[in-house]
Amino acid sequence: MKIYADIKSGNCYKIALLCSLLKIPHQWIAIDILKGETSTAEFLQKNPNGKIPLLETDDGRFLSESNAILNYLANGSALLPDDVFERASLLQWQFFEQYSHEPFIAVARYINVYLGLPESRAKEYEALQTGGHNALKVMETQLEKGDFLLGENLSIADISLYAYTHVAHEGGFDLSAYPAILAWIKRINSLPDYVSMNDFPSDGAT
Amino acid sequence: MKIYADIKSGNCYKIALLCSLLKIPHQWIAIDILKGETSTAEFLQKNPNGKIPLLETDDGRFLSESNAILNYLANGSALLPDDVFERASLLQWQFFEQYSHEPFIAVARYINVYLGLPESRAKEYEALQTGGHNALKVMETQLEKGDFLLGENLSIADISLYAYTHVAHEGGFDLSAYPAILAWIKRINSLPDYVSMNDFPSDGAT
Repeated sequence: MKIYADIKSGNCYKIALLCSLLKIPHQWIAIDILKGETSTAEFLQKNPNGKIPLLETDDGRFLSESNAILNYLANGSALLPDDVFERASLLQWQFFEQYSHEPFIAVARYINVYLGLPESRAKEYEALQTGGHNALKVMETQLEKGDFLLGENLSIADISLYAYTHVAHEGGFDLSAYPAILAWIKRINSLPDYVSMNDFPSDGAT
Repeated sequence: MKIYADIKSGNCYKIALLCSLLKIPHQWIAIDILKGETSTAEFLQKNPNGKIPLLETDDGRFLSESNAILNYLANGSALLPDDVFERASLLQWQFFEQYSHEPFIAVARYINVYLGLPESRAKEYEALQTGGHNALKVMETQLEKGDFLLGENLSIADISLYAYTHVAHEGGFDLSAYPAILAWIKRINSLPDYVSMNDFPSDGAT
């Protein structure tokens, strides 16, 4: 199995973290978005949407979208519950992540860390703060009720939300107002076989 | 089972269409976003993220996010495949819808139809066209290969993408450049028990 990815992207890091926690063997193929490596004709053959992470199975099928890949890889493990309602709740958190969380927190982080918060994007950066804090409040409300997003057990919903939440400060979000989120972050980065974005070799070899 | 929704929203329409196709009995509770009915303390108790559609089970549990609700309701039906990879591919299309399709096509439609394309948003409207056409091209490429997004069989991935695609012209998107999408739209609106956004009673009663 191949994973085309860039560890600097939180969406790609989700896959690296899951593979580490579940000890899933794979070949990590480092892709540099900034060098246009997701826009080549060769890459667009693999994923017409031109995005990473992208999974290639041993028999040459492709799967994109980080949260879809997590569902595929976690199947049969304790991180993906069998109960129909619980599984739908897990998806609820993953869709929340892609629609109400990532477009604010990840984009603010990108503008700040990768672009150096240029004056031309200062207004947009400011506007993203409101949406990001709304998302963090929703997470805080949920994490006040249990150790993890679905209650007492870790699931791939936590991995999806952890990816950009634990680096939210890099997008200007002060997490000290969210004690339940901070405790949850600590809970996750204390897991056996946890791997951080920084621990990960920058050349992508695993 | 209760569905809190507004039929004018494509995300809510997805649920109405699925319930009609699968003949799922439910109570439709009309919610008016523009009157602030998703921001009341009472509604936020039900969904802290303040969004519709929202499902309430008979035993009082809540589920939000249109695509998560589709997965819950379609479980056990032919619209949700059992195969692990196929199910992940279905999720891939649903995450694509929420991240690469809806934020362009649905938002352009909203600006045009509901706000009357004010001058203050003309530039944003123009910018949304590029992202919307990118999403339509990805769909066209896939639908050239088979009758439905997953191949030969209708799934909830089609329902997710159909909702805003079939009204994309209301957001300024000319679909005549996408013959495979047009044929797919026709295939879906010819299904037995198909219900259109307009057929649906505006008072929300089902």
